[in-house]
Amino acid sequence: MTVDRMLPTEEAHDLLALTEELCDRELAGKADAYEARAEFPREVIRTLGRSGLLGLPYPEEVGGAGQPYEVYLQVLETLAGRWLAIAEAVSVHTLACYPVYAHGSERQRKSLPDMLGGELLGAYCLSEPQGGSDAAALTTKAVREGEEWVVTGAKAWITHGRDADFYNIFCRTGGPGPRGISCLIADAGTPGLQPQKAERVMGLRSSAPSPIVLDGCRLPADRLVGAEGSGFAIAMEALDAGRLGIAACAVGLAQAALDYAVAYAKEREQFGRPIAEFQGLGFLLADMATQVSAARALLLSAARLKDAGRPFSTEAAKAKLFATDAAMRVTTDAVQVLGGAGYVSDHPAERWFREAKVLQIVEGTNQIQRLVISRALVKGV
Amino acid sequence: MTVDRMLPTEEAHDLLALTEELCDRELAGKADAYEARAEFPREVIRTLGRSGLLGLPYPEEVGGAGQPYEVYLQVLETLAGRWLAIAEAVSVHTLACYPVYAHGSERQRKSLPDMLGGELLGAYCLSEPQGGSDAAALTTKAVREGEEWVVTGAKAWITHGRDADFYNIFCRTGGPGPRGISCLIADAGTPGLQPQKAERVMGLRSSAPSPIVLDGCRLPADRLVGAEGSGFAIAMEALDAGRLGIAACAVGLAQAALDYAVAYAKEREQFGRPIAEFQGLGFLLADMATQVSAARALLLSAARLKDAGRPFSTEAAKAKLFATDAAMRVTTDAVQVLGGAGYVSDHPAERWFREAKVLQIVEGTNQIQRLVISRALVKGV
Amino acid sequence: MTVDRMLPTEEAHDLLALTEELCDRELAGKADAYEARAEFPREVIRTLGRSGLLGLPYPEEVGGAGQPYEVYLQVLETLAGRWLAIAEAVSVHTLACYPVYAHGSERQRKSLPDMLGGELLGAYCLSEPQGGSDAAALTTKAVREGEEWVVTGAKAWITHGRDADFYNIFCRTGGPGPRGISCLIADAGTPGLQPQKAERVMGLRSSAPSPIVLDGCRLPADRLVGAEGSGFAIAMEALDAGRLGIAACAVGLAQAALDYAVAYAKEREQFGRPIAEFQGLGFLLADMATQVSAARALLLSAARLKDAGRPFSTEAAKAKLFATDAAMRVTTDAVQVLGGAGYVSDHPAERWFREAKVLQIVEGTNQIQRLVISRALVKGV
Amino acid sequence: MTVDRMLPTEEAHDLLALTEELCDRELAGKADAYEARAEFPREVIRTLGRSGLLGLPYPEEVGGAGQPYEVYLQVLETLAGRWLAIAEAVSVHTLACYPVYAHGSERQRKSLPDMLGGELLGAYCLSEPQGGSDAAALTTKAVREGEEWVVTGAKAWITHGRDADFYNIFCRTGGPGPRGISCLIADAGTPGLQPQKAERVMGLRSSAPSPIVLDGCRLPADRLVGAEGSGFAIAMEALDAGRLGIAACAVGLAQAALDYAVAYAKEREQFGRPIAEFQGLGFLLADMATQVSAARALLLSAARLKDAGRPFSTEAAKAKLFATDAAMRVTTDAVQVLGGAGYVSDHPAERWFREAKVLQIVEGTNQIQRLVISRALVKGV
Repeated sequence: MTVDRMLPTEEAHDLLALTEELCDRELAGKADAYEARAEFPREVIRTLGRSGLLGLPYPEEVGGAGQPYEVYLQVLETLAGRWLAIAEAVSVHTLACYPVYAHGSERQRKSLPDMLGGELLGAYCLSEPQGGSDAAALTTKAVREGEEWVVTGAKAWITHGRDADFYNIFCRTGGPGPRGISCLIADAGTPGLQPQKAERVMGLRSSAPSPIVLDGCRLPADRLVGAEGSGFAIAMEALDAGRLGIAACAVGLAQAALDYAVAYAKEREQFGRPIAEFQGLGFLLADMATQVSAARALLLSAARLKDAGRPFSTEAAKAKLFATDAAMRVTTDAVQVLGGAGYVSDHPAERWFREAKVLQIVEGTNQIQRLVISRALVKGV
Repeated sequence: MTVDRMLPTEEAHDLLALTEELCDRELAGKADAYEARAEFPREVIRTLGRSGLLGLPYPEEVGGAGQPYEVYLQVLETLAGRWLAIAEAVSVHTLACYPVYAHGSERQRKSLPDMLGGELLGAYCLSEPQGGSDAAALTTKAVREGEEWVVTGAKAWITHGRDADFYNIFCRTGGPGPRGISCLIADAGTPGLQPQKAERVMGLRSSAPSPIVLDGCRLPADRLVGAEGSGFAIAMEALDAGRLGIAACAVGLAQAALDYAVAYAKEREQFGRPIAEFQGLGFLLADMATQVSAARALLLSAARLKDAGRPFSTEAAKAKLFATDAAMRVTTDAVQVLGGAGYVSDHPAERWFREAKVLQIVEGTNQIQRLVISRALVKGV
Repeated sequence: MTVDRMLPTEEAHDLLALTEELCDRELAGKADAYEARAEFPREVIRTLGRSGLLGLPYPEEVGGAGQPYEVYLQVLETLAGRWLAIAEAVSVHTLACYPVYAHGSERQRKSLPDMLGGELLGAYCLSEPQGGSDAAALTTKAVREGEEWVVTGAKAWITHGRDADFYNIFCRTGGPGPRGISCLIADAGTPGLQPQKAERVMGLRSSAPSPIVLDGCRLPADRLVGAEGSGFAIAMEALDAGRLGIAACAVGLAQAALDYAVAYAKEREQFGRPIAEFQGLGFLLADMATQVSAARALLLSAARLKDAGRPFSTEAAKAKLFATDAAMRVTTDAVQVLGGAGYVSDHPAERWFREAKVLQIVEGTNQIQRLVISRALVKGV
Repeated sequence: MTVDRMLPTEEAHDLLALTEELCDRELAGKADAYEARAEFPREVIRTLGRSGLLGLPYPEEVGGAGQPYEVYLQVLETLAGRWLAIAEAVSVHTLACYPVYAHGSERQRKSLPDMLGGELLGAYCLSEPQGGSDAAALTTKAVREGEEWVVTGAKAWITHGRDADFYNIFCRTGGPGPRGISCLIADAGTPGLQPQKAERVMGLRSSAPSPIVLDGCRLPADRLVGAEGSGFAIAMEALDAGRLGIAACAVGLAQAALDYAVAYAKEREQFGRPIAEFQGLGFLLADMATQVSAARALLLSAARLKDAGRPFSTEAAKAKLFATDAAMRVTTDAVQVLGGAGYVSDHPAERWFREAKVLQIVEGTNQIQRLVISRALVKGV
């Protein structure tokens, strides 16, 4: 990647350099094998944690690195260009740490250093089989029995579902609608918390999501995160930032695909010339590059709003929508630039193409993003 | 498929009904297993041949069915909606029979009934590792030694490369440029004709292409098809019609994806209603349906030109370009309509999405189609 | 235009040749002046009528030419490429003749020869200031007083509003909803039927629409067309065919813009070569040409369904949507091909660009077309 | 405009507030009349100059305001949303001041305060009738005769061609190619410098460009700006920044169109509800808003590179390409949101639509931008 980045601090430059170096050392050449085996690279995540890359946007006092989102997201982008499953894992884990960080009790927050250090991997359990986009209609139930919550229901599409150490479980503790939802936190291995077989996904196979069955899973009362009934609000807060994470993954993926396509087009000759010199292909590459730059600029612009403490959720939705659509388009075109070579697994282009698709779906489909944006337009915010 | 088709004859209706029935009986439920094993369904092709579906556009006197392209392509479309590898096999085989049919010697044409009846499967060997789009620069060489041609070189991306019974080999028998190219026909098993390991493709795995090494492969002199030096012209003639075949595959794939997405959207409820009733999704489905209808209309319009004996190659290029771009867009959106379900192999949407991509590349990339069209515009034809 | 058309009859060829000739003689060079003066070319319409071009799709026994829609629409397309206002006038007039033709009384139908011969120009008064897309909510009221209907209300965006000889007035004679609507036919000059100042439109200025005020306009009881309460059904029937007319206008406009852009690109030199030879521009022209061909094919495919007496309204909606979006895109790009020259009125490109926009809006905005299509998808028709 | 801007200084906030206020006071309601008369608002420009808005990006010591491009461009954006001709005039004038500012002699630079103060309006004469995109092929000739240059040739598409006080004339003083070009500066009224009739443009009529005939125009030798033969380099330097100006115009135009469409969609009711509440339209508005935000983010990202003294010309080309394409799309859709109302001059949407088109053409067509970007990709910069 030869992106000329305007970073806010010298430290941020070092952090990106460290990330590149760590990618070269720990990620390079591994993705294909893990993808083929559909195996989650738990050790790589631990290594990232020990290198301080898991808690970037959280304050140092809880074990984070106190980095602005503007910087954190560029680290994510860098990781995504090397191995999307890793970047997505970091993004989801960051999301999963949010409820405890922002709303957890003193006691719950004691785990933050281990979470942010990579010893404890998190899963964020919001979606359900019947309610993908309509999260407020979730039906997983938690009933209070004495000093315990008894949780029953089913979650779906849970990243790290089989590998997490802790789970944020959004469940209904009250009446219908968003205000009847609470957030509980459960440890892996709690009886009744039963991760199911991973989904047979088209891409991102080394981090395939799983359904979770909650079959009378008992959790101590103090596992409630935040106030009873505040779970939906917590979930949405976390998602706003999570969308920036997915957008960063998309930008990284698209940049990698662009770089690869450009390099290929400079090497590959047809009709006696490198194909990059044919204007038809050159214009295609130019359009791809423009999409990537626009996606990154929009992402970082939303991030700076968040970093400045201003409302950013509409801009985050725009960034998620634009960046993931751009990634789908750019990776589709990158395969095209490679032609037949793009369609075979000797080159990473086909993997990126398969991976890009999921980004248009997760953490709010792009239809949900459009809903978020159009509502904000109508309200004038 | 509930497409209201305007077919030219009663016979054409029967043919499409037969195709549907044969699909139900012979194809249904098989694709996934063959795809998973990357195994070519040779027996299915033979069954199609015995049912008369392999020689549709060729005259009855050589073993074909004497159907116009307008009808043949709708059969192809129907097959593609059920199992793309089968439809593509039929299209490529139809292409591979063309040189012998149109330019073959009396003796060569004696094989036509077996070819069109499905006993002999064909491969069309034009592409080479170094020359994807620039076919006229091919370097595979055939040198005349006495009563034999000795062929040396390498072919790439050959559909049926490992399964064919006969091979059209376009090779250089003269000087550089298109006029130095001839067409030879070889039987499978000829010493020196060495199919290589199949490519590890992202989709269409049950009909993965292979490289072919030609290592001093000796062919009798009478294996020349048409005149010496006429090979490139023959190849291009065949490709014009072949592009219509790929376009038909694309239309069938897109129609299947649309139908599946509509059915899913009518079943799947979110926010208390089938998602098809949300206007945002409804408009997306409407755009998909419009693309499919336009692609089919353009395809059939080009086919009718061919059937009427008029120049059709520019319109075929437009049909190939438009239909395959539409298929890519429609299958991408079909996955989106299904959301998470679209990304897992429990539903065929992800397979169609992977398959659509190759159609933008084969039988002339869509960049080559644009070149063909723009040249025709400049020439005013 | 060098379109290679597959026409169903020899007569159709003659008709298109006649149209071209008439265009050369009567339309050529006039558009600019009429557009500049925003003057309706009533005489040109009369000439078309006398040449038999106004009643093409109606049977000969009522003064029409008994042509299939497939042919009529290609005549319309040809006209549109020369002067959109004329083609749109023919399309709207054809629409305005429909209620009397299909549902009129014996007596009303006596006017058909004059209507179809161009002596009587029609206006179709459905839209109202408050109800563009929601036609069923119209509020213009007709109250029965003895042997008369007294009509009060306001119509908007009425093509030929100031120039028509007769007006189809869709008005409420019963309760709310579509079944309370009837169709009345009024002569120009009827007291109380007051055409207002024409709209100051961006394009199609020689046929600018007008509001109509209906201020106690009294019409004899026998001016009711069809049964009381059947007006909305009549209006929708007419619109289905009308949409094909607008789609044909769009195809003609886009073809003209493409032809002009190609001709310009072959003449205009930059960097020492005609710009058409630069692949970047060549690919743009190829995409434009592909859009035009697809739009025409889709249009004619829908027309053939109508001509065969099959359901065609969903396909008509697709054709209207696709063709007008294509025209907007192609005319925008045609201006681009001309560069600065495209932006000045020395060339027709800028006029076509302004004209294309209105086609996405009239006779059901493209949003309404998407609604029509998505409802059909859900219903499975 | 309710854009939440992250501005670098308090001063920048004040400047934008001043701009808004000045727009309300001096621009509001004037555009339509000037557009109708195709009259250049010279007085408005003078007022802007006196308010300090003409020299924003130039240092205070030469009469500028020392603002970073990041701020200057947002002022331009604000102006463009109110009256594009004014914003474009400011952008072009800023461009026209560049050669003297960056390469002028001591004596030439003495005019800078009057230039930047708005007393002297500039024109930038690069394009020629035969060489739009191929600027390096320009043929206007300057021949040295004693202490004078004698300039002969023709310039085309010159903004302020009839209203400028000074003209940068790029002309050939040496051999063919870019190195034979020099930059001369001429005062209005110099004998032989003959502005021609303004072009009859589709939009931006209050600042229509003109051809300039140079008929033996004699200029003192000291009117050479920079070194002989450096004219093309100077021109390109100026254009890099000028492209950012056009991109800012596009963003402002698109934002205005979006705001207007949203406001209209909230007011306008159909089917008993504001149309903004229909998801189909809501999603369209969401896509428009996303395009506008992405365009602005990309623009400001390129501006910050320039402000930091880093290479920015590729990013400027991307910003110009993306922002002007976005403006074309957003204004086209804004007209659509208004429906019929969008097509009449009672609303500004149709004006914005006409204006957006020219932005895809000026200061390097978007094809030229793609060329710039693709060359940078190949070079790896």
